[in-house]
Amino acid sequence: MRKVVAEVKIIPMGEVSVSKYIKRAIEIFKKYNLKVSPSAMGTVLEGDIDEILKAYKEAHTEILNYVDRVVSFLEIDERRDKENTIERKLKAIQVGD
Amino acid sequence: MRKVVAEVKIIPMGEVSVSKYIKRAIEIFKKYNLKVSPSAMGTVLEGDIDEILKAYKEAHTEILNYVDRVVSFLEIDERRDKENTIERKLKAIQVGD
Amino acid sequence: MRKVVAEVKIIPMGEVSVSKYIKRAIEIFKKYNLKVSPSAMGTVLEGDIDEILKAYKEAHTEILNYVDRVVSFLEIDERRDKENTIERKLKAIQVGD
Amino acid sequence: MRKVVAEVKIIPMGEVSVSKYIKRAIEIFKKYNLKVSPSAMGTVLEGDIDEILKAYKEAHTEILNYVDRVVSFLEIDERRDKENTIERKLKAIQVGD
Repeated sequence: MRKVVAEVKIIPMGEVSVSKYIKRAIEIFKKYNLKVSPSAMGTVLEGDIDEILKAYKEAHTEILNYVDRVVSFLEIDERRDKENTIERKLKAIQVGD
Repeated sequence: MRKVVAEVKIIPMGEVSVSKYIKRAIEIFKKYNLKVSPSAMGTVLEGDIDEILKAYKEAHTEILNYVDRVVSFLEIDERRDKENTIERKLKAIQVGD
Repeated sequence: MRKVVAEVKIIPMGEVSVSKYIKRAIEIFKKYNLKVSPSAMGTVLEGDIDEILKAYKEAHTEILNYVDRVVSFLEIDERRDKENTIERKLKAIQVGD
Repeated sequence: MRKVVAEVKIIPMGEVSVSKYIKRAIEIFKKYNLKVSPSAMGTVLEGDIDEILKAYKEAHTEILNYVDRVVSFLEIDERRDKENTIERKLKAIQVGD
């Protein structure tokens, strides 16, 4: 297992209000063995890189069932020198620490 | 004033551990009249588009004082049909609603 | 003048075919003192960082005249150790060199 | 086969000059059945979505052999209403047409 932190953004083209699609994508992410942390600009995921690639592909594919075009973004942050988790990353940037 | 929701990611090239730079960027964002919401993969900002452009440029420029190269990302989400806020966006994607 | 290389992506929400908006954005970029190099996934720009910020804001704002929501992306690559140009970057990655 | 157009960006953390790693990633992409079109800000790929996911994972993983941390980006543009190719996308945005 290679634990990574990632962010997914999915844009259903042709729609202005996209929250129902984002909710569907988050439901899909939650079926996987991942930490799922939605932000206002994407969904942060933590877990095995292969699980994340599968979850990303499934969510992208699912949204393409509802619209004619999907543009999606996956960002992966992986490091070998220390464990990479959402919690550690947030702790490290706490201003005032 | 044109209120937008944005995300900034700043990557100081040449460094593996970047949290001290991210903390510095967040300090800069907080000097502006913006809502500042750090995530594990970037910093979400809410406020006037011009304030955000200025804050982004200042943070990018500041980090370039410490390293020889900076790669940074700004994403802006602006809509005319309804007010765009971090709070509204997060509410809209609450799974189970 | 601070010369940088950048990439802009502009997504007019609510539209499936977006090329006419992208063409409009490229027209705007060309009014500025920038090198403009469209790719299939965005537009690469080279020039002064302030020109690029202005061109990006004008293109984003212009597309918002046609649709109710725009999501746009700006990436800036700036370095102090050597001159950063599109030409140098492309030369440096030529496979087989 | 689901043909998509994609863009990959790979950032080897801890390095300022990254072209040798980008060259290595491009070599990997070329082993796959993909069109590979490097730009100054990333590499545009065209081909089957599964090939692209595999090529992206292999390139990300390979670069992590040389550095302690990799941040990488994959963007996928997939549409059902018409064939999506690099050539068609570039043709559609030709200013002056």
